[in-house]
Amino acid sequence: MELVNEIHLLEVFKLTITNGYEQSDREEKLDIINLNELEAQAKAIIPQGGFGYISGGSEDEWTLRENTNAFEHAQIVPRALTDMDNPETDTTVFGLNLKTPIMMAPTAAQGLAHAKGEVDTAKGVAAAGALMAQSTYSSTSIADTAAAGNGAPQFFQLYMSKDWDFNNHLLDQAKAAGVKAIILTVDATIDGYREADLRNKFQFPIPMANLTEYSEGDGAGKGIAEIYAAAAQKISAADVKRIADYTDLPVIVKGIESPEDALFAIGAGAKGIYVSNHGGRQLNGGPASFDVLADVAKAVDHRVPIIFDSGVRRGSHVFKALASGADLVAMGRPVIYGLALGGAQGVQSVFEELNGELKIDMQLAGTKTIEDVKKAKLLHIHY
Amino acid sequence: MELVNEIHLLEVFKLTITNGYEQSDREEKLDIINLNELEAQAKAIIPQGGFGYISGGSEDEWTLRENTNAFEHAQIVPRALTDMDNPETDTTVFGLNLKTPIMMAPTAAQGLAHAKGEVDTAKGVAAAGALMAQSTYSSTSIADTAAAGNGAPQFFQLYMSKDWDFNNHLLDQAKAAGVKAIILTVDATIDGYREADLRNKFQFPIPMANLTEYSEGDGAGKGIAEIYAAAAQKISAADVKRIADYTDLPVIVKGIESPEDALFAIGAGAKGIYVSNHGGRQLNGGPASFDVLADVAKAVDHRVPIIFDSGVRRGSHVFKALASGADLVAMGRPVIYGLALGGAQGVQSVFEELNGELKIDMQLAGTKTIEDVKKAKLLHIHY
Amino acid sequence: MELVNEIHLLEVFKLTITNGYEQSDREEKLDIINLNELEAQAKAIIPQGGFGYISGGSEDEWTLRENTNAFEHAQIVPRALTDMDNPETDTTVFGLNLKTPIMMAPTAAQGLAHAKGEVDTAKGVAAAGALMAQSTYSSTSIADTAAAGNGAPQFFQLYMSKDWDFNNHLLDQAKAAGVKAIILTVDATIDGYREADLRNKFQFPIPMANLTEYSEGDGAGKGIAEIYAAAAQKISAADVKRIADYTDLPVIVKGIESPEDALFAIGAGAKGIYVSNHGGRQLNGGPASFDVLADVAKAVDHRVPIIFDSGVRRGSHVFKALASGADLVAMGRPVIYGLALGGAQGVQSVFEELNGELKIDMQLAGTKTIEDVKKAKLLHIHY
Amino acid sequence: MELVNEIHLLEVFKLTITNGYEQSDREEKLDIINLNELEAQAKAIIPQGGFGYISGGSEDEWTLRENTNAFEHAQIVPRALTDMDNPETDTTVFGLNLKTPIMMAPTAAQGLAHAKGEVDTAKGVAAAGALMAQSTYSSTSIADTAAAGNGAPQFFQLYMSKDWDFNNHLLDQAKAAGVKAIILTVDATIDGYREADLRNKFQFPIPMANLTEYSEGDGAGKGIAEIYAAAAQKISAADVKRIADYTDLPVIVKGIESPEDALFAIGAGAKGIYVSNHGGRQLNGGPASFDVLADVAKAVDHRVPIIFDSGVRRGSHVFKALASGADLVAMGRPVIYGLALGGAQGVQSVFEELNGELKIDMQLAGTKTIEDVKKAKLLHIHY
Repeated sequence: MELVNEIHLLEVFKLTITNGYEQSDREEKLDIINLNELEAQAKAIIPQGGFGYISGGSEDEWTLRENTNAFEHAQIVPRALTDMDNPETDTTVFGLNLKTPIMMAPTAAQGLAHAKGEVDTAKGVAAAGALMAQSTYSSTSIADTAAAGNGAPQFFQLYMSKDWDFNNHLLDQAKAAGVKAIILTVDATIDGYREADLRNKFQFPIPMANLTEYSEGDGAGKGIAEIYAAAAQKISAADVKRIADYTDLPVIVKGIESPEDALFAIGAGAKGIYVSNHGGRQLNGGPASFDVLADVAKAVDHRVPIIFDSGVRRGSHVFKALASGADLVAMGRPVIYGLALGGAQGVQSVFEELNGELKIDMQLAGTKTIEDVKKAKLLHIHY
Repeated sequence: MELVNEIHLLEVFKLTITNGYEQSDREEKLDIINLNELEAQAKAIIPQGGFGYISGGSEDEWTLRENTNAFEHAQIVPRALTDMDNPETDTTVFGLNLKTPIMMAPTAAQGLAHAKGEVDTAKGVAAAGALMAQSTYSSTSIADTAAAGNGAPQFFQLYMSKDWDFNNHLLDQAKAAGVKAIILTVDATIDGYREADLRNKFQFPIPMANLTEYSEGDGAGKGIAEIYAAAAQKISAADVKRIADYTDLPVIVKGIESPEDALFAIGAGAKGIYVSNHGGRQLNGGPASFDVLADVAKAVDHRVPIIFDSGVRRGSHVFKALASGADLVAMGRPVIYGLALGGAQGVQSVFEELNGELKIDMQLAGTKTIEDVKKAKLLHIHY
Repeated sequence: MELVNEIHLLEVFKLTITNGYEQSDREEKLDIINLNELEAQAKAIIPQGGFGYISGGSEDEWTLRENTNAFEHAQIVPRALTDMDNPETDTTVFGLNLKTPIMMAPTAAQGLAHAKGEVDTAKGVAAAGALMAQSTYSSTSIADTAAAGNGAPQFFQLYMSKDWDFNNHLLDQAKAAGVKAIILTVDATIDGYREADLRNKFQFPIPMANLTEYSEGDGAGKGIAEIYAAAAQKISAADVKRIADYTDLPVIVKGIESPEDALFAIGAGAKGIYVSNHGGRQLNGGPASFDVLADVAKAVDHRVPIIFDSGVRRGSHVFKALASGADLVAMGRPVIYGLALGGAQGVQSVFEELNGELKIDMQLAGTKTIEDVKKAKLLHIHY
Repeated sequence: MELVNEIHLLEVFKLTITNGYEQSDREEKLDIINLNELEAQAKAIIPQGGFGYISGGSEDEWTLRENTNAFEHAQIVPRALTDMDNPETDTTVFGLNLKTPIMMAPTAAQGLAHAKGEVDTAKGVAAAGALMAQSTYSSTSIADTAAAGNGAPQFFQLYMSKDWDFNNHLLDQAKAAGVKAIILTVDATIDGYREADLRNKFQFPIPMANLTEYSEGDGAGKGIAEIYAAAAQKISAADVKRIADYTDLPVIVKGIESPEDALFAIGAGAKGIYVSNHGGRQLNGGPASFDVLADVAKAVDHRVPIIFDSGVRRGSHVFKALASGADLVAMGRPVIYGLALGGAQGVQSVFEELNGELKIDMQLAGTKTIEDVKKAKLLHIHY
């Protein structure tokens, strides 16, 4: 890790480094044994403000903690005499053929972790054969991130603005970049109460490329702060349809935590349901995301695919989420830590480690394919 | 914080400072991130005996701890596509228009925390647009505290004495001061077994204005200790009616922890039910107050409003209490800590912080108004 | 505390002090706030081997710990508008008028804690108006302990020997001493696996008076070890009848932990059921004693009185046990600690402290009498 | 403990000591109070890599920990007036008369703990009157281990290879050595994700005799690694029958954790069901083994005997497993620690300690025989 060369970055990414924020520029494979260990390692190289933003949850972080603890609420049954070997993690979802059901969650401001930001993440995700999701608030632009994916599939996540010109601009770019679906985030109509950011008096030291670009293009000198303030608090069923109509792409609604809302979103035109509590970053005091997944999946009843995230750290978590109704399982923080520690190769290492753990679990649970995992029965012994 | 100037205080509040007790005289806004942090800060400036009295619970403090832990027994459902923004915390209860459903719990002897005691609390509460409740055992007089509220609504809490002349004297004063309701505390017919006070051999170093005044007025040299001893242990249904008849004010019965008693109190004439276990200060080994709220509310069935307290520290706690049947949610200790740390402005900061957290939770839970919060369904996943 | 004067003790109590064991000879009132604190204080003055014997449980001490934790499985409902004061702890059980439902559990070898052993305990218990139970393995003789009680009621606990001459000898003495009932312990047919004693290679340094006396009387030089070895492992229903017939006293069966055994014991002639797991000293891995009390009481259905012990440390524990079906609630270890720390006065202090806590709980729970407590409904919220 | 004399070992056991691995050569009785304490003692004398292999579990070791914690989910009922003494642990299972229901679990590579490896274990187990199970991956040969048992019964555990010549070779040897049954392990078709081994970059420093022998015998220079790679991942119902037909011995299927698989295995010809999660070494995130035992036993319904392992450390655990449907209860790690600390005598001490604890529990639970234990009813109070 070195001090970022501002000139260089400005040339390549049009980023301005403010506040002397130090970005990692590591590029190397990681020797990972346990994804949980990455957090401490990443903390050592990511500046405090950025680390607080990435790692923190809201309020007392109860929901953040329970997100991971909740996987203990279900147990995988080891199976015997199954006459199988070489489990396969390939899966087809949203018409996409993927090497793994583990995908990259849309995650903002990855320049906080690494100088190359989402570009490196997209590379690493593609190398792992996984699905990438870009965030509206990416440090790198839609086009650059898409190009880094080298043909691998990507989704684009939209933080809806009150300014539909801006929304349309983003959607135009995403469509032009060839993304396969739009993820509309609906659980962040206001920021969660994240104490780490308050304590650090955190301000983004790295510009967000999509906003910078639009702001510059606007010519009227519209500042980033102004655009932020324009983020929509009101998001309605009509917005799902509007985005779908405008893009002609499937819209996945992200931030669903109840059967009722899953059905409502589908009724509004959602072509995918993304069960998530935003990694415990939004409403603290809500349930662990895993604890509501099975009920949501039962209500959805295979009408549309389900993406799940929040708290996933082990292969067994992925297995349990799939067996509880998820079609894809997304990760955020561990990938960002891998990005900080090893750039694109670090990202790839994180995906390969988790997928490797998943394969062991699949073999021991007697499940040859991801479809088999989805049909596996879990126990629910209370510990 | 400085040593209190005894002369000054005696002049202004007719208080005698005994035992060299040091009172805070801070007056400043507080930069609060988390109400839980106030306790340690307040501990550093409140003398040990006073802090033990304020913070302590009874016996092993199991009920005290569970009061706050119990909020984890319910979870708020984050809602999606709700088409709302700008949640509003205004509410109308007991015919009063309030800016927030968070109110000040009646809390004794606030001179322990700050030289201006309840006068400053009343100012801060009024500035926050909240409802103030005075305690019989206030450090400042009913009239002074009422005047400090500057027209904002207040309730008066009665610790009933065996001496009905004294009760009537207090009620006369409260009525003259314009309080809107009488809160009759029924869960403190004897002091809880508070070990901190025993260890500190705690004696009130600050006179209680209402008692001092009556004692002086009596002329017969009746001492404060004598009045204390006269506190009624026997409180009956007839007392509710007697107080209501005497004052022509609504009587709220405070210290209800069961559906049976809620119905009994309403039958006795109560115009409000105050669900509380006195912040874990009375009967240790009783349930967390939040754990009985929903059952009490179901029995009350909107016949009268419900006030709730005990263990509230976060916006999500307020939300969960409202969604479990409370109409108003009261706080005690955190406000007293805010009073110690910042006087009237500190009190205001505490209310604004908690109300701000509540607003975030309301937005994320898709609840525009307090009435919406009351109708929100909670989950009850066991963790 | 001083080194025990062997000559003196041999003269007065016919005890031999072996291994240089140091006995407390304190005689003073204790200023107790919380019985749990006595253990550490007592540990500081009781020699390690004796302390391990007194305080220890079996195996990993899970049952020992859960005995006390289990009281959290039930919650007392604070009651309102009860129109009562001055709760009274007097109770009549087994035809005896007692000042308190808290009694002394039969506890062996109290000379380990204090030079005067059971004689001091009996004095303290009598001063507190409570019921005393002597253990077969007392450090002082039946007659001496009885005399120390000064007319207050006592029970005698029998560890049955294979040698019925010895059993009859003990029962003769007990009857001559005027005890009101025989407690037949049936849960100690073999010693629990107490690791503290194994680690300390503990051997009783203080003779047990009843055994010494019989051994001497026997003339044949029968050693104490021999008598121990003669303790009966086989105890049957017929033994209950045999003891009842021999003594014409009520026989209480101690060590019942299931409804089945309670009914079986009553069928065998038991006039009282003593629910206990021997304070977690016998079968580790068995349930907390409080957790089986209600079911046992339901089966017993008031046919005979129920004594309860194991884990009682607070007034709220006594309340919960009474409300779950106990007629008397016994304490062991805390009294022994009080004995070590203050002799007879220390014992009295322990009883008075616990009874004082009970009275506070009774007032706050709206229960005027012990009969009211027995009828109080508990909550069973799982924490 | 000394540095192993390589020459000596090569002569006697044909082992090569690699990497300077230090093996214990202790031979002494152990003074054991609590099997849990052996782990720390053994850790002090077993090299880090070997200790990690022996003690470790998979992933975050949740299942490893819960294996032991789960025994708290059931409670033994202490019984009264049972008219019994001298409980007996003799039992007859699989037609074998055993002194104890506690058996040795098949455990690999015991040379990691002691220079004499399984030979010493077999001696100690035989001296305790218990049943020995050899592992395919033993450090000593089938014949040597069998001979050390001195006529006491042994089972042989098979890790099936893709190479049926090797399987048949092992089965031939086992049959020639007189083993009474074949244990077919089916829960290790791939290694669990054991982080300790990954951190230690663990490689077996001690050859496995059965593999060495076959490899040498093969003449083609087939290396051990090659044989490992040949371990079968696919194990099917047909394999049970094939092994049974080939050996004419009862085949016990090890690694069953569900009623479904137990019935499937019996349908496939299994003459015994071995409930185990491999001591938490295979699928982390699966249930504690004890938590599934009762349901498996109910399904098996006495068609065939049940062996149980995973987490057993106390006599009360053995009791609870028997009372939940096990006919034999196996131990692994504690015996290996005893082996390291005391060789054959250490092994014997471990069995005697646990059997001694079991006897105490039997007496206190009123169970004279192992058949009585099996019929004992457990409580299931949730703690």
